Amino acid sequence: MAFAHFHGLQSLQLPSQEPARNHTSNNKRYAIEACVKNTDDNIHLESKLNLVLDSVKWDEKGLAVAIAQSVDSGAILMQGFANRDALATTIASKKATFYSRSRSTLWTKGETSLNFINVHDIFLDCDHDSFLTLCRIIYLGKPDGPTCHTGSETCYYTSIFDSLNEPQVEKRQLALTTLYSLESTLSKRKEELSGPQQGKPSWTKRLLLDDKLLCSKIREEADELCRTLEENEDGTRTLSEMADVLYHEMVLLIRRGLNFEDVLEVLRCRFTQSGIEEKNNCKQKLSNDLPSFDEHLLYDFFNLKNVVFV
Amino acid sequence: MAFAHFHGLQSLQLPSQEPARNHTSNNKRYAIEACVKNTDDNIHLESKLNLVLDSVKWDEKGLAVAIAQSVDSGAILMQGFANRDALATTIASKKATFYSRSRSTLWTKGETSLNFINVHDIFLDCDHDSFLTLCRIIYLGKPDGPTCHTGSETCYYTSIFDSLNEPQVEKRQLALTTLYSLESTLSKRKEELSGPQQGKPSWTKRLLLDDKLLCSKIREEADELCRTLEENEDGTRTLSEMADVLYHEMVLLIRRGLNFEDVLEVLRCRFTQSGIEEKNNCKQKLSNDLPSFDEHLLYDFFNLKNVVFV
Repeated sequence: MAFAHFHGLQSLQLPSQEPARNHTSNNKRYAIEACVKNTDDNIHLESKLNLVLDSVKWDEKGLAVAIAQSVDSGAILMQGFANRDALATTIASKKATFYSRSRSTLWTKGETSLNFINVHDIFLDCDHDSFLTLCRIIYLGKPDGPTCHTGSETCYYTSIFDSLNEPQVEKRQLALTTLYSLESTLSKRKEELSGPQQGKPSWTKRLLLDDKLLCSKIREEADELCRTLEENEDGTRTLSEMADVLYHEMVLLIRRGLNFEDVLEVLRCRFTQSGIEEKNNCKQKLSNDLPSFDEHLLYDFFNLKNVVFV
Repeated sequence: MAFAHFHGLQSLQLPSQEPARNHTSNNKRYAIEACVKNTDDNIHLESKLNLVLDSVKWDEKGLAVAIAQSVDSGAILMQGFANRDALATTIASKKATFYSRSRSTLWTKGETSLNFINVHDIFLDCDHDSFLTLCRIIYLGKPDGPTCHTGSETCYYTSIFDSLNEPQVEKRQLALTTLYSLESTLSKRKEELSGPQQGKPSWTKRLLLDDKLLCSKIREEADELCRTLEENEDGTRTLSEMADVLYHEMVLLIRRGLNFEDVLEVLRCRFTQSGIEEKNNCKQKLSNDLPSFDEHLLYDFFNLKNVVFV
């Protein structure tokens, strides 16, 4: 993730043959700022944008696969297709925009539900010069709410292995990576505790029921992690102790009804300073007294924004 | 992630019209076990598999977009297309297998490079009954090595915003989510310290140069995290303290030359017990004396494997 932003483009005339449908319908949410300082900058920017759009290898229908991924959790939110206009619109509006092949129009995810996907960066795959006919695009962004029209966080909740195991049971199990799979399991343990039957005993449940035990374990595991450095233990010991402390810290988050993804949002907001809109988005997650970790300036992006890193 | 496995299928005759190319060429790596106990089970399993394959909405060419995602880091490794045979082969072999449209053959990622993607679960998207003509597939798995033929960890390292900013500079910046973007920045700080010029001062660099300071901060932040629970502070304080402790713990990992992804692999290996192959894969990451967090049995998968969760 570049933590880079391209506000200049937001006031550009899109190099588009077809107007994007509804993609500016919600002005308040789009909060498009007039950041470009003069016409020269504008022309220069537009020409760069055309160069980038020209470099994309569109298929014979002018399309490319576009995957939207959550910048914090890494979850694959959805997959669609983009054409040149959809990509240009996404770059300019920073809202994930696709081309609907069935309706033959652009559509911005969230234009109806208001669950936009706020794009932080866009990546292309490597096959610029190979025999393959498609380019692939990742929209790396933050969703305002559930991405799937069913209300599910993502569109991927049908596990083939589950279907093979129990075809008659319609289960909803999101495609979760390790950390979020662990978090989901910890949440289930908490739910079991609040039910009429508390289910099988588990270490997680013991921790959830005993704050004193949980806190003593976190302090103990943090100490053990430090000792692997202080006593120059083997790297595998460090990995193991880090796994221990992370697990216990995640139990504390669950105990308090919090999500790991929100911790990542705090981290992201803390080590980026990228304009009013971003700061406003982050305000709810950040206490005012929290500084960035340091003042190491990495980018001065078109002199429009400063991005501060750890 | 289901942490579920389907070894029974590994000895099945694939319901395929076309043999998979080279997908059994490396017997040692595949380690296919004969787990099905009797012919009835086998027939039952094959019929279930056909039902699942029939439920997939293939496009007019019999294809669906297939995305390979890292089970630990969440990184999107690559995107290709799968047909019925490719999906059946992936289910059976647990190696991500695609259909090459240019060569009109199946290909298993890694058949040449040996950098297989070991599939843990497969997810389909939600549009089973919509007007859309495509089904989308996620292969959630663990790559043996770099996925991209360029040697890059994933195929997504070309940032559009970077290209717009500095079109003349060919940069390689992977599409990293928040945690891995932070990790990448911490690594850069460490690299700067080992160079002739140490670059601008930063808090991260101070920590990397002073083990005593780093360890005292980890203990302090872990304590502060606990106190948000003990003193019933607001949830935003917990998120903030968790962000603090996580950042400092990640600095310790970098200090020791370790990756956060390896911590997640330890966690995954620890809370799954899923057969000899999985255990062997995990051995290098796990010390022998590490127990699972508890013995809460969730699945008894076809009575072939037990999957143990926290």
